[in-house]
Amino acid sequence: MSDADGQLHSGVSATVPVALGDRSYDIIIGRDIVDSAGAEIARRLPGARIAIVTDATVADLHLTTLIDSLDAAGVKHVQIVIKPGEGSKSFATLESVVDSLLEARMERSDAVLAFGGGVVGDLAGFASGIVLRGIHLIQIPTTLLAQVDSSVGGKTGVNTARGKNLVGVFHQPDLVLADAGILDSLPARIFNAGYAEVAKYGLIRDADFFQWLESNWRAVAAGWPEREKAIAIACKGKADIVSEDEREQGRRALLNLGHTFGHALEAVTGYSDRLLHGEAVSIGVVLAFEFSFKLGLCPLEDRRRVEAHFTEVGLPTRIRDIAGDLPDAATLMHHIAHDKKVSQGKLTFILTNGIGDAFIARDIPGDKVEAFLEEQLAK
Amino acid sequence: MSDADGQLHSGVSATVPVALGDRSYDIIIGRDIVDSAGAEIARRLPGARIAIVTDATVADLHLTTLIDSLDAAGVKHVQIVIKPGEGSKSFATLESVVDSLLEARMERSDAVLAFGGGVVGDLAGFASGIVLRGIHLIQIPTTLLAQVDSSVGGKTGVNTARGKNLVGVFHQPDLVLADAGILDSLPARIFNAGYAEVAKYGLIRDADFFQWLESNWRAVAAGWPEREKAIAIACKGKADIVSEDEREQGRRALLNLGHTFGHALEAVTGYSDRLLHGEAVSIGVVLAFEFSFKLGLCPLEDRRRVEAHFTEVGLPTRIRDIAGDLPDAATLMHHIAHDKKVSQGKLTFILTNGIGDAFIARDIPGDKVEAFLEEQLAK
Repeated sequence: MSDADGQLHSGVSATVPVALGDRSYDIIIGRDIVDSAGAEIARRLPGARIAIVTDATVADLHLTTLIDSLDAAGVKHVQIVIKPGEGSKSFATLESVVDSLLEARMERSDAVLAFGGGVVGDLAGFASGIVLRGIHLIQIPTTLLAQVDSSVGGKTGVNTARGKNLVGVFHQPDLVLADAGILDSLPARIFNAGYAEVAKYGLIRDADFFQWLESNWRAVAAGWPEREKAIAIACKGKADIVSEDEREQGRRALLNLGHTFGHALEAVTGYSDRLLHGEAVSIGVVLAFEFSFKLGLCPLEDRRRVEAHFTEVGLPTRIRDIAGDLPDAATLMHHIAHDKKVSQGKLTFILTNGIGDAFIARDIPGDKVEAFLEEQLAK
Repeated sequence: MSDADGQLHSGVSATVPVALGDRSYDIIIGRDIVDSAGAEIARRLPGARIAIVTDATVADLHLTTLIDSLDAAGVKHVQIVIKPGEGSKSFATLESVVDSLLEARMERSDAVLAFGGGVVGDLAGFASGIVLRGIHLIQIPTTLLAQVDSSVGGKTGVNTARGKNLVGVFHQPDLVLADAGILDSLPARIFNAGYAEVAKYGLIRDADFFQWLESNWRAVAAGWPEREKAIAIACKGKADIVSEDEREQGRRALLNLGHTFGHALEAVTGYSDRLLHGEAVSIGVVLAFEFSFKLGLCPLEDRRRVEAHFTEVGLPTRIRDIAGDLPDAATLMHHIAHDKKVSQGKLTFILTNGIGDAFIARDIPGDKVEAFLEEQLAK
């Protein structure tokens, strides 16, 4: 919260419930709420021991704050620190984390606390979903991307040589704490990558939210209370869709807006710093709008607004914005066809009738996609 | 089915439904029903491709029959053959099977078919539960143990250096086919080990079934229609408990009758051929009855009947029946305390008031167990 001169106060600003029957949970959003995480955990999981899984970068910056909070609340804990970076989302690191959890004698009533970005959340979430066939999970995401996307909805996983996130489980957390203050320590590029996912919720089915972001994105980036508002709306957008379709039988696929193109771009750039996931989503979303426009579905004006906003924020929006050599259309198609959102051979895409009106198209012909990509690469 | 002179006919003899809401499925029990597996699968999962996971031993004996049946029904399939034995229930084999499934381009609408004993079922079940965050699973168990226990109820997993089955997921199959005829090729020792699990269902809460087994076990062993009846009753016993408590929050723990002692004995004998799982369960069940008797819970007569029946069948019933050096009580206790059925430090045991009347005891003092084990080891 800010007073008249914009100073920030700590505390909870919103609680977003995720309605999933006996797997329901809350996302608590606020500023500096890691400081009170211990009390919240003690209240919700009395007696549980906590295994903090984090990476070395987050540990250096924030682990002391978290541990002090757990200690103050009398919550017992151990810590498992992994190497930062996408490379840790592997079977090998999974086995090592699982082994550490067993070594720490975790019981079914105990909890894993994933403290980090998407890599930590996906890996620790997967480990918590398989150790003793599932123990409790608390997510304290430390990137904007993880706060509005990967920490919510129960998808966990690791990568394999054959692709990203092709192996994992659905395992819902018991609690998500999204601390807007912790994002102050993020590099701008990482923050922006997460912002693409925030804007995505407006583009999927909340045109008013997208319009609000067009006017308020600087306050979101600056960490004013608008940031907490944006996180809360994005989390609610995801929570609503996940509640309707926990296991992605249908509507949940809407969350993949921009992701089919995006995953292919990540694959051809080796999932490297050349292109962050959120940056790939940014380009993918703009491509999805462009493709929808070419198919006569989306007004030109909406496509232009999306590209203009992402450009203003500082996100890449075109394939040519990626540094280094570009892949050809056939290579991109190869990755698209390998993507897991394939049903008995047909390509599924999330297309749009305009801002706030995305939909699932289940039988897009591959040659149309390839022709579109060739055109985009020639630009 | 048999006619007057005991000749056996092929066909389905029973269907046991497992009621789990939208994860409900059938266990189909009969003789030589692998021959018609293809038609059954085509009917239940139309269009699905099948990845058969089996081990080299089962493949040699039965894979042609299964493949002919799939081909006849026009079901597309690939096969993944693993090494026989408990050693394959590892993270390394899991990763390799998952990789093979991805290489085979399995989609969410496709199915893994676990064709083998408990190792294949647990491993392939786990792989099917995590590849693409869960694809369909068909179980065709080829041992008695797997037919009445591991293939039913959705528990999957692998072993780690820290213990057996400490890592896995709950992932229910779409169909279980229990072919009583396929058991004809089992060595007697393997058959008997499974028989201990069959009798367990009578001991847990069906005294009439145990009494029936006392009179009819030879017909069960010989493969007469009594075998199918015994499998069906045992499967129904498990299905009922699993339906009440899918994720082992409560009553499902009853299925662990004999398993706390049994797991410890398996651990100290290195999970080797020295002591098969079902043999460990046999000794464990007798110990549970003995311990319950010592605690004044179970009549002596019931304890005697259990031991007499298992002995008659040819199962080991005493720790001294295990070949080789015996561990001391402290070593056994160490393994018992490490067992996953521990809740915030207290020992949970399945005890019994007599045949057909098992119950969950949640706060058994460790020193009482250790004193009991010392006494048993001294015998």
